[in-house]
Amino acid sequence: MTGLDHVAILVSDLDAAVKLYRDVYGLPEPEIEEVPTEKVRVAIFGHGAGRIELVSPAGPDSPMAKTIEKRGEGLHHVCLEVPDIARAMAALKAQGAPLLDEVPRPGAGGSRVAFVHPKGSRGVLVELKEGGK
Amino acid sequence: MTGLDHVAILVSDLDAAVKLYRDVYGLPEPEIEEVPTEKVRVAIFGHGAGRIELVSPAGPDSPMAKTIEKRGEGLHHVCLEVPDIARAMAALKAQGAPLLDEVPRPGAGGSRVAFVHPKGSRGVLVELKEGGK
Repeated sequence: MTGLDHVAILVSDLDAAVKLYRDVYGLPEPEIEEVPTEKVRVAIFGHGAGRIELVSPAGPDSPMAKTIEKRGEGLHHVCLEVPDIARAMAALKAQGAPLLDEVPRPGAGGSRVAFVHPKGSRGVLVELKEGGK
Repeated sequence: MTGLDHVAILVSDLDAAVKLYRDVYGLPEPEIEEVPTEKVRVAIFGHGAGRIELVSPAGPDSPMAKTIEKRGEGLHHVCLEVPDIARAMAALKAQGAPLLDEVPRPGAGGSRVAFVHPKGSRGVLVELKEGGK
């Protein structure tokens, strides 16, 4: 499986945003997850590839609160499922692309993930993901 | 079918961007389409829901060239497949959300589409889509 795993959208008010995406746009009831390590609450719509994830700061000291303050709400990143994350990271490094993770770190469901800085990916913050459920 | 139809990414150089997404990120060979009415060239990765579409100006007078000049490359919009576009648009209007299309217009493959201004959709430019192949 390769391609779009999910698109992450940054929102200030998770409950209001869920109402928009569920009640107005007709998406299914999302699963709500707290990620304490990143101080965010996430609403995940759907289970397979191509999910929409709404991400909101869990408190005023969340890094995401600072991002919203600086840039407002909006599209945040895309997560791409890649067949070989080490190979993709090596190719990016060879091009001089800045990586936010020098080595893959554990992601959800046993996956391995790494973020690529928008400067190395034509203006898009990209999360690479290999494996996992 | 409801949920994410595609995510559109604005790029200045389509061929270079295709190399990144295909050769580094491992996406399949895209289909390239010219859309003369919007003065863009589009690289479409995959056929089903959850596609990634790279959009580039077809010339210096393309509206997308101006957007890149102003904001740079990056995530542009998400297209959501909705069960009833008229109902979604009525709900948005009732909330005072600004719509870029007052009535749905013809989209690809016999669909009907309408754009919602980011101000009415928590910072995200949203394309609503109903029907089509």
